[in-house]
Amino acid sequence: MPHINVDENLPGIRSLMAFSPKTAEPMSKLANLLLRNNGGLSSTDSELIATYVSYLNDCFYCHQSHGAIAACYLNGNKALIEQVKKDYQLADISDKLKALLGIAASVQKGGKNVTPEQIEKAREAGATDKDIHDTVLIAAAFCMFNRYVDGLAAHTPGDLSTYELRAKQVAEKGYGNHIYTEKQPS
Amino acid sequence: MPHINVDENLPGIRSLMAFSPKTAEPMSKLANLLLRNNGGLSSTDSELIATYVSYLNDCFYCHQSHGAIAACYLNGNKALIEQVKKDYQLADISDKLKALLGIAASVQKGGKNVTPEQIEKAREAGATDKDIHDTVLIAAAFCMFNRYVDGLAAHTPGDLSTYELRAKQVAEKGYGNHIYTEKQPS
Repeated sequence: MPHINVDENLPGIRSLMAFSPKTAEPMSKLANLLLRNNGGLSSTDSELIATYVSYLNDCFYCHQSHGAIAACYLNGNKALIEQVKKDYQLADISDKLKALLGIAASVQKGGKNVTPEQIEKAREAGATDKDIHDTVLIAAAFCMFNRYVDGLAAHTPGDLSTYELRAKQVAEKGYGNHIYTEKQPS
Repeated sequence: MPHINVDENLPGIRSLMAFSPKTAEPMSKLANLLLRNNGGLSSTDSELIATYVSYLNDCFYCHQSHGAIAACYLNGNKALIEQVKKDYQLADISDKLKALLGIAASVQKGGKNVTPEQIEKAREAGATDKDIHDTVLIAAAFCMFNRYVDGLAAHTPGDLSTYELRAKQVAEKGYGNHIYTEKQPS
């Protein structure tokens, strides 16, 4: 049961954003900037980083939500999402993304865990300053989103099909405020 | 040395926000909404929560910055800030703030660490749903800000007087974008 009185018809972060629309606005904007066509990392790579960090933070709502969105961009390849969660080193992804996932995993533990060697490895695999910046900020932002959701014990649906429905909407329209406050399509 | 090429004349998060002004805008807006006159918690209490979480995350730049801002609201009472960091249970603060700092400390470890007993204790001390929501989101947001700063190894001044100068500006003007991108006053 959520720790505060939120709309029980809305799942996860959407119930919190409906409770606090003022803070929802910049949070949605940040998610949109980081995860969609930000001029650097692809939306697929950004969503995989978000999914992996959410998985490390054990936030079921967030890793299911963002895993489902990543799957939309990957033609439904859920096996790849599961492999990234389980052991990204063995996943069929670029060396650059592997290096960035390593940085993201360090950020999840705490900012000081990122090493110059990890940065160097990412650069060698083709990462730019912007890629590194965005990876650190995506990982940091999901340490916020994950704690927001679980810290208030937001309702987390167990039925995985609900995540897929919502994921299609986000993949099409992005993380506008409407995503969090509109009702689920019937 | 920072992991990416940022303006070396700007300290901490300000150098990162100047590097990425698009993401700086919603981040500054969120900080402003959470830490200044948000219609619930006082700015003093919000800044003390931000300071404490940053201290737990061992982010020197952030706990010095927000500790200095809190001190501005507390007529320069730095001893209280230090006591909150060291052991808030012994600090001369309200029972409500003590209960909220307990919740914030749990969020810092991970959202699932917040217990119904902690929420109940905060309610008994007078906390509203909004106070609890804002406490969790402030703690979560500083798990982002702290990781952003240290994850990119942003320049952290050792001279504590620089934090006091900046703190006065923030206490007067808030967390507008200008706070992060303007040069330090000479």
